[in-house]
Amino acid sequence: MASGIERPLDLLNSAKGKEILVQLKTGKQVVGTLLAFDIHINVVLDNAKEVENGEQTKNYGLTFLRGDTIIFISPSNVKE
Amino acid sequence: MASGIERPLDLLNSAKGKEILVQLKTGKQVVGTLLAFDIHINVVLDNAKEVENGEQTKNYGLTFLRGDTIIFISPSNVKE
Amino acid sequence: MASGIERPLDLLNSAKGKEILVQLKTGKQVVGTLLAFDIHINVVLDNAKEVENGEQTKNYGLTFLRGDTIIFISPSNVKE
Amino acid sequence: MASGIERPLDLLNSAKGKEILVQLKTGKQVVGTLLAFDIHINVVLDNAKEVENGEQTKNYGLTFLRGDTIIFISPSNVKE
Amino acid sequence: MASGIERPLDLLNSAKGKEILVQLKTGKQVVGTLLAFDIHINVVLDNAKEVENGEQTKNYGLTFLRGDTIIFISPSNVKE
Amino acid sequence: MASGIERPLDLLNSAKGKEILVQLKTGKQVVGTLLAFDIHINVVLDNAKEVENGEQTKNYGLTFLRGDTIIFISPSNVKE
Amino acid sequence: MASGIERPLDLLNSAKGKEILVQLKTGKQVVGTLLAFDIHINVVLDNAKEVENGEQTKNYGLTFLRGDTIIFISPSNVKE
Repeated sequence: MASGIERPLDLLNSAKGKEILVQLKTGKQVVGTLLAFDIHINVVLDNAKEVENGEQTKNYGLTFLRGDTIIFISPSNVKE
Repeated sequence: MASGIERPLDLLNSAKGKEILVQLKTGKQVVGTLLAFDIHINVVLDNAKEVENGEQTKNYGLTFLRGDTIIFISPSNVKE
Repeated sequence: MASGIERPLDLLNSAKGKEILVQLKTGKQVVGTLLAFDIHINVVLDNAKEVENGEQTKNYGLTFLRGDTIIFISPSNVKE
Repeated sequence: MASGIERPLDLLNSAKGKEILVQLKTGKQVVGTLLAFDIHINVVLDNAKEVENGEQTKNYGLTFLRGDTIIFISPSNVKE
Repeated sequence: MASGIERPLDLLNSAKGKEILVQLKTGKQVVGTLLAFDIHINVVLDNAKEVENGEQTKNYGLTFLRGDTIIFISPSNVKE
Repeated sequence: MASGIERPLDLLNSAKGKEILVQLKTGKQVVGTLLAFDIHINVVLDNAKEVENGEQTKNYGLTFLRGDTIIFISPSNVKE
Repeated sequence: MASGIERPLDLLNSAKGKEILVQLKTGKQVVGTLLAFDIHINVVLDNAKEVENGEQTKNYGLTFLRGDTIIFISPSNVKE
């Protein structure tokens, strides 16, 4: 498991097309399907939904997230 | 759906001329028609309106938004 | 309307010599005549006035504003 | 002990494949197995778990952590 | 008035040797005679005085101010 | 005393292998033996201990500290 | 007075070997003898003392101060 990850961005590359969980510095979380990312960790999610306390509160659809607002990204655990 | 997005900025490029929702780090949201953007995610909106709790509170018209104040941009869901 | 804006700085260029509204990260707003700007969005305003709750509270005259303190700049709507 | 560390990143290199403790600027701690890191101190952890007051509260599995949210990383002391 | 200002730093250049008002991000203001500045907007003031609520509270004399702590600089209005 | 310090990093270089006190922006202090540092002021400490109000509260052992979380480093005064 | 200061760093250069007052973003002040500085405004002080409300509260001796935590440096007025 977790094989083939030499550099941090390898994880994001392998998560393309899959659901990811994004923790923002604001304290909120966003889940969605990862479509694209760049070296600034800017990401584009499809079907992006804001999550608070495990509840999906808002639906933003296709969304561009600025990398400098992100704490962590977890591809493996979008439902808790 | 969401085809043709290889890099994050591709989403912004495809949103030119359309209404977008911009979430600011201040907690406020701005909606408007995307006219231009650059690699710093500076954007120019036409008919920019501030939104609080789903209400449009102020009308700024043509507006330049500095990229480092932006959390996310969503082209697909300007009305909630 | 809003024609000829290919890049975000085009808006600032077209606003030279005109009144603009600058929203600062501190929560305050400044209005004044745009004399100059650079790629850091540093701007020089003539006849700069601080605005709180729609009231002009202080008059700073000719003023240099550091770009990293700016949220947005709106040339089109200096009076609300 | 602690031999062979000429530059700070040498410590992270020697910790690959081992459990590390990551202190975030948010005040939270994350523990997990270090899989990869880069010069921005972006890290990928396997089996990442959030820790509050010594209790493991959430399990994020494979996780990308942005370097600019990190205060310190300690490979030697994941249990207190 | 305000002629000859092509770029923002032109204003600072024309203010050398004159009194300026510096608004800091901390909320405090400093007045003093501008002796030098650089592209980071680091400035050196002679006879620098801290101002709170229009009162000069402390006298720091010759002072180096780091550019990233500055909101705005106004050469024209040191007394309110 | 304090001879041979031409540039700030000279002090860190001369402190290698010695105990240092690190003041973090979070308000906490860490003491430990300096093993390595780089130009970002990232440091690696051996036997790192968190200090609050003069009390050593936690022991992190070998630790990587990110430079941008540091206010000051004092090699000469680890006990107060 | 204040002659020979063409660029901001000239002031720091002329203050080498003299006592300076450093205002930190944390609100605290540090006084000490300036031994070295660099373009990031990292400084090394000898005999560094923390000052709160005009009282010297802690003595850190030889100290490295990170430039990005500094608001201003005043060589001329270490006692108030």
